[in-house]
Amino acid sequence: MARHIMTLTCDDRPGIVATVSAALLAVSANIVENQQYSDEDTDLFFMRTVFDAEPHEVEQVLEAIRQSAAISHHHLAARPEDEHCRTIILVSKFDHCLLDLLYRWKSGDLPIDIVGVVSNHEDCRGLVEYYGLPFTVIPVTRETKADAEAELLRMVETNDVGLVVLARYMQILSDQLCTALEGRAINIHHSFLPGFKGAKPYHQAHDRGVKLIGASAHYVTADLDEGPIIEQDVVRVTHAESPERLVAIGRDVERRVLSRAVRDHAESRIFLSGRRTIVF
Amino acid sequence: MARHIMTLTCDDRPGIVATVSAALLAVSANIVENQQYSDEDTDLFFMRTVFDAEPHEVEQVLEAIRQSAAISHHHLAARPEDEHCRTIILVSKFDHCLLDLLYRWKSGDLPIDIVGVVSNHEDCRGLVEYYGLPFTVIPVTRETKADAEAELLRMVETNDVGLVVLARYMQILSDQLCTALEGRAINIHHSFLPGFKGAKPYHQAHDRGVKLIGASAHYVTADLDEGPIIEQDVVRVTHAESPERLVAIGRDVERRVLSRAVRDHAESRIFLSGRRTIVF
Amino acid sequence: MARHIMTLTCDDRPGIVATVSAALLAVSANIVENQQYSDEDTDLFFMRTVFDAEPHEVEQVLEAIRQSAAISHHHLAARPEDEHCRTIILVSKFDHCLLDLLYRWKSGDLPIDIVGVVSNHEDCRGLVEYYGLPFTVIPVTRETKADAEAELLRMVETNDVGLVVLARYMQILSDQLCTALEGRAINIHHSFLPGFKGAKPYHQAHDRGVKLIGASAHYVTADLDEGPIIEQDVVRVTHAESPERLVAIGRDVERRVLSRAVRDHAESRIFLSGRRTIVF
Amino acid sequence: MARHIMTLTCDDRPGIVATVSAALLAVSANIVENQQYSDEDTDLFFMRTVFDAEPHEVEQVLEAIRQSAAISHHHLAARPEDEHCRTIILVSKFDHCLLDLLYRWKSGDLPIDIVGVVSNHEDCRGLVEYYGLPFTVIPVTRETKADAEAELLRMVETNDVGLVVLARYMQILSDQLCTALEGRAINIHHSFLPGFKGAKPYHQAHDRGVKLIGASAHYVTADLDEGPIIEQDVVRVTHAESPERLVAIGRDVERRVLSRAVRDHAESRIFLSGRRTIVF
Repeated sequence: MARHIMTLTCDDRPGIVATVSAALLAVSANIVENQQYSDEDTDLFFMRTVFDAEPHEVEQVLEAIRQSAAISHHHLAARPEDEHCRTIILVSKFDHCLLDLLYRWKSGDLPIDIVGVVSNHEDCRGLVEYYGLPFTVIPVTRETKADAEAELLRMVETNDVGLVVLARYMQILSDQLCTALEGRAINIHHSFLPGFKGAKPYHQAHDRGVKLIGASAHYVTADLDEGPIIEQDVVRVTHAESPERLVAIGRDVERRVLSRAVRDHAESRIFLSGRRTIVF
Repeated sequence: MARHIMTLTCDDRPGIVATVSAALLAVSANIVENQQYSDEDTDLFFMRTVFDAEPHEVEQVLEAIRQSAAISHHHLAARPEDEHCRTIILVSKFDHCLLDLLYRWKSGDLPIDIVGVVSNHEDCRGLVEYYGLPFTVIPVTRETKADAEAELLRMVETNDVGLVVLARYMQILSDQLCTALEGRAINIHHSFLPGFKGAKPYHQAHDRGVKLIGASAHYVTADLDEGPIIEQDVVRVTHAESPERLVAIGRDVERRVLSRAVRDHAESRIFLSGRRTIVF
Repeated sequence: MARHIMTLTCDDRPGIVATVSAALLAVSANIVENQQYSDEDTDLFFMRTVFDAEPHEVEQVLEAIRQSAAISHHHLAARPEDEHCRTIILVSKFDHCLLDLLYRWKSGDLPIDIVGVVSNHEDCRGLVEYYGLPFTVIPVTRETKADAEAELLRMVETNDVGLVVLARYMQILSDQLCTALEGRAINIHHSFLPGFKGAKPYHQAHDRGVKLIGASAHYVTADLDEGPIIEQDVVRVTHAESPERLVAIGRDVERRVLSRAVRDHAESRIFLSGRRTIVF
Repeated sequence: MARHIMTLTCDDRPGIVATVSAALLAVSANIVENQQYSDEDTDLFFMRTVFDAEPHEVEQVLEAIRQSAAISHHHLAARPEDEHCRTIILVSKFDHCLLDLLYRWKSGDLPIDIVGVVSNHEDCRGLVEYYGLPFTVIPVTRETKADAEAELLRMVETNDVGLVVLARYMQILSDQLCTALEGRAINIHHSFLPGFKGAKPYHQAHDRGVKLIGASAHYVTADLDEGPIIEQDVVRVTHAESPERLVAIGRDVERRVLSRAVRDHAESRIFLSGRRTIVF
């Protein structure tokens, strides 16, 4: 027996849980964890089930669910829990989010396989190579941007990558690339969205005199800073903090929020429902 | 159709979810919410299901589950969601937790029916009567303690009470009464248990110089301050806070924590697993 | 000897602390608490000093400070700590913030004297009168708005009011009234500003799928929802919360944030520095 | 002019602030930050002042304060802000706290000079050397413990070390060493003290079913886990977390709490008042 994670999105109607649990029982699978949610706004049903089963019987489970009259317009997938999400990390010069991801990955805290780290600068090479990972520099200028993105996308596709993490990657992706990576690229924005979009959010926060600063991890979409939010957090600050100090404080929130979002994605806990996320 | 809440505790084994969902599907009930947990420490399975069904068919669902071979050593119950938990609140002189409960109840935020408020002092009469509720004084002295507890227990049983809230009730219940109220009496302890048990916890916290103070809501057991913890929270304090100020700050945490625990109980979200609680 | 609170704003230059502390020492006053801040953005200096002194010698302290060459463009004030801030509370139909303020005032937790509660609706009369306070209804329609505001302002001036609290008062004040009440009217906005300005912020928060909702207390200015922020807080929510549930959860944050801002104002802890607040 | 940090502890009596500020004004020093606190429990006065002054005039300031009749039983010190606290980090096998300290030090976030990292195991050598720091292994067995401690103390004294950080160092220091390092050795305990002292606190927390787990940074004293608490924090957990998962979650709290305590110490923000700390 091996532990599997199954995710299901479909139209919300009676009989779905009965269908899924009967399909699992038919192969004597044991349900370890189960979460579900019916979104009244979108009339969609979401389910995440962790179960122990013989690997060769999983396809039979999926087929039984697919054939059921209770299931329509479904997205259904299952994978062994130990089949980690293949991941590429994009980074520029700031290394705090990168280090946090690398450390957590190394300590077994993040179920991802890091295919490599890609940057438009050389700065993080030492850190990445210390962790024994390939570091690829793809410089980006106005002229080379299209080529650079094509190269990145090739890496994603060649390596069967399920997650691209923008760990303070200071380049705006083209609409085309955003579309190609839809639902599998996570960005960390250094503010509590929807406040302080755009550049220099900590300076905006200082000018406005807010008492909490935050960070937001979201899926990348063509509509900048408007992608579905996955995770957010804040930290209390006072009038005494300069913009520079806010930046330093913000680094802690950013890395914490991004790491949580990456884990949620890698554990198949996130579902899209319109422009909102369901996170089990 | 009416919304129902069903709770199930039983031995953990395959087929439980399939059994429950099939039983619900058989009467065309619609699952609205579902949470489950397998406790590896106790080998128990816990499930809370919210569903819409015809009231006269609910008994049929329960019977189907009871008859199933997959279900053993079960505690199984279902009730209409709008059948509120009948509640008695015990209070002494401090009224902050009481007021919070009364206000939330009045604003529809707590699904309880308050049978009455019982106190060993007159102090809170005005507040309780402002909210249009019966206020009963049962004085407690060493001599009258047994009679007082007997009277309280009579009130509990006569009124089919499902929850007794000790909202800063400054009397220690006898072992007998604790046993009679097992699993349905909630106390708020004014510290972050297991630290600072016993009297004057805020003074203890001040002397020890802790940087956070807290409160813990727990089920009452004969073993004082050792009952299963339901909910806890803390708030940051500094060296500058006097013990008296800690008491004032603590009032906010206490009422917040107690209200959450009362809601969780009233919504049938809490299960006992050994000395721990499962809170869905 | 009586405890006094002194506040000073002036141009930032050397010698201010020496001047103030020498003036206090000259009358054998004892400094109990002292906070200060130099704002590099505005070149202003802010100081809040709590001291014990003979009441008849306080004016001598102030005069010595005023005469000093180190102090220019000053705002300087001192008052006995037990001379409470005279306060009017404005409310419409929602009573959660009102109740919280009344309860804290009654329990000695807020150093304010409540002159009265003013509303454009009858709904909160029972609660206010239970607390033994005058309740005045000043209805507001498009036609009567100017008169209503004039009446309110008369109450403020007649009663020497130092704080007007908009405790979910659902009327927009005219620019004139905002100006008249500058620096002494506090509003609670039911979102984490600057996100979700305007109407129905919890519905906006739900639509955007944020993972934290919040509230912001700010001084009222003619520029709606843009006044200097005094205090903010947030609470974690999930996809499962409906807009209605967000409203209920939000009530807790709103009342907590508003009460803190009112206490800070009443304890003379808040200073204005441009559009930001300094809160000691 | 250079920025200096001055700290003063003395008996609490009138005239201290006037004395200090006059002494600073006499050399035209400019006060940038100032915090003070009178502890009614111990009758001690604490003050931390950041000021800009000519380096050669600082001794004159100190002498003027020492000579004043207002100052008795004083501890008085001043240092240039950029004279960093010389620090040794002790570590065993767990590297999460170590990495966090190294990263923050490298990014300029912690004003310490790391003299070296000492361990009783080889495990962390790679990490330490990646950061370009000396790594010294001092094995500890029952027989060699006294020698090992003597060697450590020699390092501390030879290098003028102002801070020893026990970053999950899994050895109990002898009473003698504790005394020698009093007030300059910080330990991170993996629980919210005073709860769960001793070994395996996360397992204790799991067994007790607490809803928050935490960490506490404290000065090391001979009385194990009873030293003055500097900083604490908690994180919310649920019934679903295994002890192993609590350990992983706890790593985040531990490193956050320890880093804050180290910064507070390095910025001369911590004062001892009996068994409590004053943290400005």
